[in-house]
Amino acid sequence: MKRIGKQTLEFSTPPSILGRGAIGGKKEAQGPLGADFDQTFQDTTLETESWEKAEAQLQKEAVALALDHAGLAAGEVDFILAGDLLNQCISSTFGLLEYQMPFLGQYGACSTMAQTLLLASILVDSGAAARAAAVTSSHFCSAERQFRTPLEYGAQRTPTAQWTATAAGCAILGQGGRVQVRRGLAGKIVDLGVKDPANMGAAMAPAAADSIYQFLQDTGTAPGDYDGIFTGDLGAVGSELLLQSLLDNGVDLGPVHQDCGLLLYDRDRQDVHAGGSGCGCSASVLCGHLLKRMERGQLRSILFCATGALMSPTSSQQGESIPGICHVLHLVRR
Amino acid sequence: MKRIGKQTLEFSTPPSILGRGAIGGKKEAQGPLGADFDQTFQDTTLETESWEKAEAQLQKEAVALALDHAGLAAGEVDFILAGDLLNQCISSTFGLLEYQMPFLGQYGACSTMAQTLLLASILVDSGAAARAAAVTSSHFCSAERQFRTPLEYGAQRTPTAQWTATAAGCAILGQGGRVQVRRGLAGKIVDLGVKDPANMGAAMAPAAADSIYQFLQDTGTAPGDYDGIFTGDLGAVGSELLLQSLLDNGVDLGPVHQDCGLLLYDRDRQDVHAGGSGCGCSASVLCGHLLKRMERGQLRSILFCATGALMSPTSSQQGESIPGICHVLHLVRR
Repeated sequence: MKRIGKQTLEFSTPPSILGRGAIGGKKEAQGPLGADFDQTFQDTTLETESWEKAEAQLQKEAVALALDHAGLAAGEVDFILAGDLLNQCISSTFGLLEYQMPFLGQYGACSTMAQTLLLASILVDSGAAARAAAVTSSHFCSAERQFRTPLEYGAQRTPTAQWTATAAGCAILGQGGRVQVRRGLAGKIVDLGVKDPANMGAAMAPAAADSIYQFLQDTGTAPGDYDGIFTGDLGAVGSELLLQSLLDNGVDLGPVHQDCGLLLYDRDRQDVHAGGSGCGCSASVLCGHLLKRMERGQLRSILFCATGALMSPTSSQQGESIPGICHVLHLVRR
Repeated sequence: MKRIGKQTLEFSTPPSILGRGAIGGKKEAQGPLGADFDQTFQDTTLETESWEKAEAQLQKEAVALALDHAGLAAGEVDFILAGDLLNQCISSTFGLLEYQMPFLGQYGACSTMAQTLLLASILVDSGAAARAAAVTSSHFCSAERQFRTPLEYGAQRTPTAQWTATAAGCAILGQGGRVQVRRGLAGKIVDLGVKDPANMGAAMAPAAADSIYQFLQDTGTAPGDYDGIFTGDLGAVGSELLLQSLLDNGVDLGPVHQDCGLLLYDRDRQDVHAGGSGCGCSASVLCGHLLKRMERGQLRSILFCATGALMSPTSSQQGESIPGICHVLHLVRR
């Protein structure tokens, strides 16, 4: 692979998607993308004893779906890159334990799907792996009790708050598939001082603007060169800030921009306030919706730009701001 | 790079250490390796307002030391791979924010230094990066209150418990240095059912045995081919289990094995029970002690095998066991 511009990598033998799996909960099944999931659960405990165990199960099932789709056994995958929002990333550990694949735990908050895909692509392109898997998950109930308040409190949510998706997505990369990862960019941590944990979109938008702007500069391309530029989960508030911020820098993303957090739910019909979020949001929208549209030829060239808010309840309680990050992948249908 | 055996990577243009920095607290300064630290602090708050902010400061300082040692500016480093033990890895986020390097957050519990070094090596060998940094940290006080009990409780520790090091280590990889990363192995998650969070050594030993055994198999080497095989932080209990487990499989690690958790403190004189632990333990022992001995020619060829316990207080409270992981790096002085 080679570096182009300041931050972008261009793959020499572009890795491609060999298999993908998207799984969601009841609310996700009822949303506009419900039919795009490979599997959905009406019972969001997934018949386990805790929300955390349910989330681990989501990852396990997403990997099983992707392996099945690729026609591969677990032993044929050389690395798995995985992460989630739970403290110490336990959904990944316990969800993936039985696969016995060499494991590299990732933490990029809601940007994790782009991060795992970027590293999996580097592993495959470099020859470190013949095949590498990227997976991440989130669960509304495990996230609420860890980051906010126990569900039983019935706390009110502010209009800027987003809804953590109960979902997971897995993609297995290798050579020979139809949809390729052509280029990628790892983002910088960007912090413009937003401190409201109920407004993650605003906290992440500057990072999305920074990474997308840099990618376009590095590659000498414009938004119109892509069939779609999909941010992770900026939601309604963050999306508007992103568009405005890029417009101020002479880049009009409007005609091609969509946000996974806005695609996943129907905000008029489903009570998700500013939109969806969580690692599983962009992961399941990518693996369920976007990759399928690419396979069908409805999209040929897209940017997938998952965004993450790198905070913890502790950092917020200690008065820290919420730094954001955004990684960019350029996917192309051959 | 090429894959050898089942799980090992061999680098084609082995990345080397361009700069390194090790930083520690008061107890670490008083230990047997005190003189090997590049910087130590008597005040373990590092003049910040919280233990978490102090830990972030440790990472920041470790990177500054490594950049200075390499004679590089932050802008000359293409990626930084970092992680820590705190929920959502906030020491990394807040410690590294100002460097504005493309950031890939890692979570491997106490194995994180080996994981970041492995990925940084892959990035450099593949040409994805001209230079990549690997850094991690831990802080006794932030870890105690997050994983165990607030310090103010004065809770008694069991004899098998380990002492989380207040320390950080950073290494910057590129081409042209004297100490090279020749080979690497990413470990699998191994779980033999240990459930006692006050006995992490026992939980991690099976993973160390698995990864070291596999590395020796893949490379067709024996323990005697190395000047030292350094595990991350198995401590006294885990080290004994590792040696026994490998002996049962016909491998005698005894003559060359040492453990970073046992090197860092004097167990007779310092009240650390089974030894040191925490991401910063193996990171600072590597970057402060081992790399300096390699530079001086006292060690020529070593394995660095950091180990991690992939649990959280929540997973333990829910009755889950403690899965372990171990990544292996083969370092050689040219």
